[in-house]
Amino acid sequence: MSETPKVWTAALLVIGDEILSGRTQDKNVAQVATWLNVQGIRLAEVRVVGDEEAAIVEAVNALRARNDYLFTTGGIGPTHDDITVDAVAAALGVGVVIHPEARAILERYYATRGGLNEGRLRMARVPHGADLIPNRMSGAPGIRVDNVFLMAGVPSITAGMLDALTGTLEGGLPVLSETIGCWVPESEIADLLRQTEKAHEGSAIGSYPFFREGRTGANFVIRATDPAVLAECAEALLTGLRATGREAFPGGI
Amino acid sequence: MSETPKVWTAALLVIGDEILSGRTQDKNVAQVATWLNVQGIRLAEVRVVGDEEAAIVEAVNALRARNDYLFTTGGIGPTHDDITVDAVAAALGVGVVIHPEARAILERYYATRGGLNEGRLRMARVPHGADLIPNRMSGAPGIRVDNVFLMAGVPSITAGMLDALTGTLEGGLPVLSETIGCWVPESEIADLLRQTEKAHEGSAIGSYPFFREGRTGANFVIRATDPAVLAECAEALLTGLRATGREAFPGGI
Repeated sequence: MSETPKVWTAALLVIGDEILSGRTQDKNVAQVATWLNVQGIRLAEVRVVGDEEAAIVEAVNALRARNDYLFTTGGIGPTHDDITVDAVAAALGVGVVIHPEARAILERYYATRGGLNEGRLRMARVPHGADLIPNRMSGAPGIRVDNVFLMAGVPSITAGMLDALTGTLEGGLPVLSETIGCWVPESEIADLLRQTEKAHEGSAIGSYPFFREGRTGANFVIRATDPAVLAECAEALLTGLRATGREAFPGGI
Repeated sequence: MSETPKVWTAALLVIGDEILSGRTQDKNVAQVATWLNVQGIRLAEVRVVGDEEAAIVEAVNALRARNDYLFTTGGIGPTHDDITVDAVAAALGVGVVIHPEARAILERYYATRGGLNEGRLRMARVPHGADLIPNRMSGAPGIRVDNVFLMAGVPSITAGMLDALTGTLEGGLPVLSETIGCWVPESEIADLLRQTEKAHEGSAIGSYPFFREGRTGANFVIRATDPAVLAECAEALLTGLRATGREAFPGGI
């Protein structure tokens, strides 16, 4: 008997009043999700909390316990509302220390930018036992402690930190996907979708309707880790859609 | 002694594999947050889960218990991956029934669109005891049951449902905000921010740095429910920033 391969999962905790107030449109969920998939890790859940220690601590402990990895974005800057490091340390039951390498990085970075002050030195603080995640965009590094990865909130800086982590985390098989588009109301072919998914074990079909140019259509996304299952399921769906007398478009509309 | 006014809170549960896979960029968090604020309700937390009943049930019960309102987006369509109604009913411990008015709405809507079939009739299913939320964009209505509001995943449809709910929910004072922009690295004026916030009880200052045109700047968002507190805190911050010899811009950069 073959063993089912382990599914590696991660959670993402987005930290910041600016997301909950609606002021800032989050862009980190999609970029972290996409990056994780390439690492063979499935994003299993996301939470967004404000800049409140109790809320962060609760979420960190719930999410890190039941996932292989926990990523956080936001709250690692120099100002009073940046409390992620303290909250994660509290969640892990460890103290906060100045990381000597982080301090050295900040001293170099700010040498030509007015020098290290008290606010900037805050960005060298890490939970005890932490390692650094390189930041190629600006001075302050990200932080890894246990299975928790603290990253910046600004999406371009987050992207650089993810890039630095690429290939360093253990994962499983990446999820592959194919998209088929069709000018059909999804409600007309709901049976076909359900039956096609059921007939191909290891596949999942998502249905994403849209209204465009005054017409109703949908893209159907087939996902599987096994390329053969993916190809067979996609072919079956394409054939099924065309059997209804409609055009269907591999790659989506 | 004056009583502290009650703060009304809501949570948002975003349901859908397409968000967790990174395929779709969520747009509902920002629009629900903005809308809630106008109703005098604070968005306290957000979770994103996939199309899995156990995950939805757990999140629904955690979030509805500790907030005045819970909103969900996604998973109320006609296909096999639309399981929000069943999961919310399971969370509430009630059965699922066909809502006669929802059925009548769908019959009218699909009369000229090929008629009501099994998949489309799924969209008339509601947790027992539910009311409908009007859908001005397409056929299937949203659903209200207890303090839980089930809305569509497609942002334009969600917007119409929010519009239909405007003014119908009890809330408190809306949070007011003012923004001040300054070409300054936030790390240089972290002390000023902290002290200004501390000196104005009932205010909160968020700091949102950016890099633009090769320069470092930040927008500072002051929030308060009391317009006098907001005005005084904003004036103090403006004065403080200008005292450092920099230009500061009411309204933000």
